[in-house]
Amino acid sequence: MPEKDLRVELLTMTPNALELIYASFRQCYYAGFTADMWPRLISGDIEKEKQDAFVSKILESGHDSPIEHVSFTFAVEGISRACSHQIVRHRIASYSQQSQRYVAENDMDYIIPPAIKKIPEARERFEKFMEEVGSAYKDLREILVAAGRESKANEDARFVLPQAAETKIVITMNCRSLMHFFNLRCCQRAQWEVRILADKMLKLCKESLPAIFRNGGARCEQLGYCPEAERFACGKYPTLKELTERK
Amino acid sequence: MPEKDLRVELLTMTPNALELIYASFRQCYYAGFTADMWPRLISGDIEKEKQDAFVSKILESGHDSPIEHVSFTFAVEGISRACSHQIVRHRIASYSQQSQRYVAENDMDYIIPPAIKKIPEARERFEKFMEEVGSAYKDLREILVAAGRESKANEDARFVLPQAAETKIVITMNCRSLMHFFNLRCCQRAQWEVRILADKMLKLCKESLPAIFRNGGARCEQLGYCPEAERFACGKYPTLKELTERK
Amino acid sequence: MPEKDLRVELLTMTPNALELIYASFRQCYYAGFTADMWPRLISGDIEKEKQDAFVSKILESGHDSPIEHVSFTFAVEGISRACSHQIVRHRIASYSQQSQRYVAENDMDYIIPPAIKKIPEARERFEKFMEEVGSAYKDLREILVAAGRESKANEDARFVLPQAAETKIVITMNCRSLMHFFNLRCCQRAQWEVRILADKMLKLCKESLPAIFRNGGARCEQLGYCPEAERFACGKYPTLKELTERK
Amino acid sequence: MPEKDLRVELLTMTPNALELIYASFRQCYYAGFTADMWPRLISGDIEKEKQDAFVSKILESGHDSPIEHVSFTFAVEGISRACSHQIVRHRIASYSQQSQRYVAENDMDYIIPPAIKKIPEARERFEKFMEEVGSAYKDLREILVAAGRESKANEDARFVLPQAAETKIVITMNCRSLMHFFNLRCCQRAQWEVRILADKMLKLCKESLPAIFRNGGARCEQLGYCPEAERFACGKYPTLKELTERK
Repeated sequence: MPEKDLRVELLTMTPNALELIYASFRQCYYAGFTADMWPRLISGDIEKEKQDAFVSKILESGHDSPIEHVSFTFAVEGISRACSHQIVRHRIASYSQQSQRYVAENDMDYIIPPAIKKIPEARERFEKFMEEVGSAYKDLREILVAAGRESKANEDARFVLPQAAETKIVITMNCRSLMHFFNLRCCQRAQWEVRILADKMLKLCKESLPAIFRNGGARCEQLGYCPEAERFACGKYPTLKELTERK
Repeated sequence: MPEKDLRVELLTMTPNALELIYASFRQCYYAGFTADMWPRLISGDIEKEKQDAFVSKILESGHDSPIEHVSFTFAVEGISRACSHQIVRHRIASYSQQSQRYVAENDMDYIIPPAIKKIPEARERFEKFMEEVGSAYKDLREILVAAGRESKANEDARFVLPQAAETKIVITMNCRSLMHFFNLRCCQRAQWEVRILADKMLKLCKESLPAIFRNGGARCEQLGYCPEAERFACGKYPTLKELTERK
Repeated sequence: MPEKDLRVELLTMTPNALELIYASFRQCYYAGFTADMWPRLISGDIEKEKQDAFVSKILESGHDSPIEHVSFTFAVEGISRACSHQIVRHRIASYSQQSQRYVAENDMDYIIPPAIKKIPEARERFEKFMEEVGSAYKDLREILVAAGRESKANEDARFVLPQAAETKIVITMNCRSLMHFFNLRCCQRAQWEVRILADKMLKLCKESLPAIFRNGGARCEQLGYCPEAERFACGKYPTLKELTERK
Repeated sequence: MPEKDLRVELLTMTPNALELIYASFRQCYYAGFTADMWPRLISGDIEKEKQDAFVSKILESGHDSPIEHVSFTFAVEGISRACSHQIVRHRIASYSQQSQRYVAENDMDYIIPPAIKKIPEARERFEKFMEEVGSAYKDLREILVAAGRESKANEDARFVLPQAAETKIVITMNCRSLMHFFNLRCCQRAQWEVRILADKMLKLCKESLPAIFRNGGARCEQLGYCPEAERFACGKYPTLKELTERK
């Protein structure tokens, strides 16, 4: 039952992503047909810079639905069940998560909150408890199996597994949903674990599709000010009130 | 840290539900305006039986989108975090769940799986472990508070809380999403806990809106046969293969 | 084939709406159970003003998901097919629209754009054309019926019906989706017809649930500045740039 | 103003689609991490046939959420506005449609229903009317421009454009949403135009991802019987009643 590190891998994404977004924007405003423009787009006849500039300008005007045509799929391991519970609350997305009903957790990995890790006394208490979890899970599975409940032993024994238990999940989101995810989860108000995950996802998105994700992140990164209520502001950006009263 | 019983309450639902579904169906097929028909509908001038018959006939033809206009809101307590994780995977719904980040769990309630409850040895082991959880949570909170991390003490200490930890949640779903929820979660293949919850929700729906939920439940209740792969069939209904080969 | 006026009626909404939103917010942050608080809420023991103040403060902090528990259902007549095509692009909503496949349009009503109505020459041309539509629809139906295609005559003849053709639709949206709808459709950049509709819906929402919709409308009404690109700003509010440079 | 033929092009789709679905299914049931399996999957180390068989077996058991990770993007031209209005009612999808507000329709193309095309008298009447549309649109634009309404001339003149007016649209749907789209729109009960479109999309899906779309189409293709009410059955498959009473 060791501690487990976070890994975030970009499994795949929609190919020719910038071209697809450019073509979809264009389809709204011009008389021709996307499919006729498409070969020239993917062969590079229309310069990336031109596409990037066009897309940025339209996005700025608030017309962001065409970025939905592009999706990213991530494989994530090394997050807690507490964290995955927060992730799956984002409903415009698709998830495939490791099931504790089917997978035995005899060697459960877990996540330690950094604040607990930093305090030796807390860390020791936490790790001792994780051993108790391992014993309880093992004991209960054995009792259930001995009582003839083998097929449901994982399902019932998992009730002792902690929020810290490590899980793995495949996540697919389109760019618009990702932007919203980053808006909420890269903010300092988000919990440390989902924020670290969101930051790693954002980094991969920026590398793969800078035209869209260049200004991705918490809402302040796009607005230039902090839209949170004053008592929640982290100080990285001024609040709107501070901004307008500054001069 | 006692065991907690399941409670499911129907907080509210769309008023004049049958009338609204009837009127919405009618709006698709006739020349008049729903709003002109509405006063006669809610005053009872058009008989419930007639509306019920009309709605049933259209539903049978597969046109089920108008039932989306009616929503139900439930308040649920006495379910485990394992169960709430399954519920919130239903994305066409709205949830407000008790947060372990904000609410201290010094007197955490919990859910015992029935199979564990029935075996005295298992039950004893389970309950002993729940006491260990309580100690670990309390110890970690104290250490974190002593180290000056009071504001985040709940958030970090909750990593030791088990899947068995009791949670409360407000759930709103429209009738179409509820039908789908019941299709999956009233089936014998669903986990015992979410199945008991779904059965209780279904019972409340049947009482409040029989025209729609009369045949609600696992898919077999509507189909008259079991659509699962043979190896998963529970035997309540014949499979399609059995049904067609029977005679 | 006369011109048709817009009518927007609030058919129904979730009862005890403020109480439901208040209770759902509370469920996230406190240890008790919503259903136990509910009777005191709907009997008026907890003052509306207190609930309103609590809800407003939480909304301000950006936590808006609990307002999803409340839905509004509107019946709308007197909008064009052009307008209904814009409405149904809002995907977090339920619609039941009058079908041109099933309802014969021998006496089709229509919508005249105000700019056309104001110019006598344009109005005359428009109205003359609407008569041509009526003739073409009638002629085609007759030819199809004579050729034994009665059952599909509406379905095929309707290909001549104009975007101006009047339609009726039942719309259900939850408050969060409505807020977004108003953000986009009450803005001066929206088309005149959907803007008039959105304004009427907003008026009904404000009357029925002021705690939520008090600041509803285009995004500027909530932000205090215009978030559009400068070239699209209508002037009602300063842009962010103007706001910060003003002093 | 000529007639326009339907074109459906698959612009792009999620790469390594079968591998992604296989890996996502596996993630639910096994202890390892998708990202570690991924290089072996896309290099072909795990045979396509094995993946196909695994995926088919799980799908048969009703667990279809992992197919959501794969999306298809189509470019469509040569459909009527009547048809696009039906398409966009599918809400789990993303659309970018040619706007009649921005694109002038001086040379509007259109769609003729086959039943009208086959009857010379009907066709002649239809085509004559399309010329009247062209005149009315042109006249109104000119009057509006002369009156200083150039910027809104398209937007207002388009009220005379017919449901037959040709439109172009970019459509992205994931496999689960596509399966549902085909269930409804490949059925004989669907309108002829959207059925032809759905059949063409299905053909492209079958070629690109047979493991998923092999049995795609109307619901009868998966069920082996017609689930419609008897009065709507087209006769291609027996109804369930006929099937069970047959022997």
